[in-house]
Amino acid sequence: MSQNQPIKALEASVNDVVSVKLKDQRIFRGRLTRCDVYMNLTLADAEEIEDDQAKAKYGQVLIRGNNILWIQVPE
Amino acid sequence: MSQNQPIKALEASVNDVVSVKLKDQRIFRGRLTRCDVYMNLTLADAEEIEDDQAKAKYGQVLIRGNNILWIQVPE
Amino acid sequence: MSQNQPIKALEASVNDVVSVKLKDQRIFRGRLTRCDVYMNLTLADAEEIEDDQAKAKYGQVLIRGNNILWIQVPE
Amino acid sequence: MSQNQPIKALEASVNDVVSVKLKDQRIFRGRLTRCDVYMNLTLADAEEIEDDQAKAKYGQVLIRGNNILWIQVPE
Amino acid sequence: MSQNQPIKALEASVNDVVSVKLKDQRIFRGRLTRCDVYMNLTLADAEEIEDDQAKAKYGQVLIRGNNILWIQVPE
Amino acid sequence: MSQNQPIKALEASVNDVVSVKLKDQRIFRGRLTRCDVYMNLTLADAEEIEDDQAKAKYGQVLIRGNNILWIQVPE
Amino acid sequence: MSQNQPIKALEASVNDVVSVKLKDQRIFRGRLTRCDVYMNLTLADAEEIEDDQAKAKYGQVLIRGNNILWIQVPE
Repeated sequence: MSQNQPIKALEASVNDVVSVKLKDQRIFRGRLTRCDVYMNLTLADAEEIEDDQAKAKYGQVLIRGNNILWIQVPE
Repeated sequence: MSQNQPIKALEASVNDVVSVKLKDQRIFRGRLTRCDVYMNLTLADAEEIEDDQAKAKYGQVLIRGNNILWIQVPE
Repeated sequence: MSQNQPIKALEASVNDVVSVKLKDQRIFRGRLTRCDVYMNLTLADAEEIEDDQAKAKYGQVLIRGNNILWIQVPE
Repeated sequence: MSQNQPIKALEASVNDVVSVKLKDQRIFRGRLTRCDVYMNLTLADAEEIEDDQAKAKYGQVLIRGNNILWIQVPE
Repeated sequence: MSQNQPIKALEASVNDVVSVKLKDQRIFRGRLTRCDVYMNLTLADAEEIEDDQAKAKYGQVLIRGNNILWIQVPE
Repeated sequence: MSQNQPIKALEASVNDVVSVKLKDQRIFRGRLTRCDVYMNLTLADAEEIEDDQAKAKYGQVLIRGNNILWIQVPE
Repeated sequence: MSQNQPIKALEASVNDVVSVKLKDQRIFRGRLTRCDVYMNLTLADAEEIEDDQAKAKYGQVLIRGNNILWIQVPE
């Protein structure tokens, strides 16, 4: 899989803080600790975000890739 | 499958208490007893949670992976 | 398929009374008579449940696995 | 495929009257004339049911399996 | 594929007028000109139907099978 | 793939103006420039249509096949 | 894969500014940096657009292809 693959942008962000928007419109922010090609991923120190504020803290969360709309990753 | 796979975070949580958010916005909390790569899983002593309170108790529940949004697992 | 597979909890419940929550939020309760790995299943003496009461009786019902949210099975 | 497969309950109902609940909450009732493993099926003398009354008559209807929630079949 | 397959009822209706109900609750009526095993199909002289009246005329329409709820076909 | 395949009606319409109805109920109209068997397609001079009027102009648009309800093609 | 494939219009737009409409009706605009055949893609300098105005800036965003309705690409 070449560096041109979109999933590479996710893999390159392991250990970085990312934001994940889900189909139910919730946003999670946390440190990316694992990901796979289906965009399944785990976040450490995960927070649910509302109006740019942490609304709830969840610790470690496993997010199912098929319910993800987008992921904001560091440049 | 390497330890970097997100599903490993679920497998490592067997026998621990986890919270599972479903597509219909319900949250189940219970002791994880089984899981597979599709995120199908069984919980023992499962409770439906509302406002951090147990709203209903279900005993053993089998949850279908494709309707899961996220799973909170111990760190 | 080992006993650790979630679907084994369903197979072990054949002939037992189970409750099945569907994506449309309806709950069916009945005696599990058949199931497969997709969670397709048949219930005998199936009842639709509302507020823990039987709202409608359906006899034998075949439920499509991909529209199931969760199944409450005996421990 | 053994007799334990849920789909067998559908195949055994060919020529019988069945009721089919669709994802859009409509119920069709008619004589089952054909079915396949995806739960695609055809009904003869199909009626759309509302409050246990025939609301509309459709003659022969082909129903797509992936939009079926459940099928009531004779015991 | 035997004559018992539900899709055969569709194939047998080529050149006949059929009605197609879509997931968005719209109904199209027209002469079936082509179909495949996914229930993709084309209608000639297609009309959108509302309250049994033609609401809009579309000429030739290609309908995607996976968004079809049911198809009324001649007996 | 024979001429009886529904997708052939789309392929035969390359360079013609078509209308595409999406799952979100929006209609695009434009000149079909490319298509594949999944009904992914590109339109040139694409317009979003409301009440038979052009509401917005988009130039070239790539539309994802799995979110298409139907495509009106020339006869 | 020939130049007639719709996905080629996306590949040809790498390094160009594109707009992406998602299933939740949000539009993202940014410079396309990567894409694959599933329409997974990454945008640099991504902005969420409302009424043709930038409503929020996200930097680099990875968008999941299966939740995309359409992509506006340069001609």
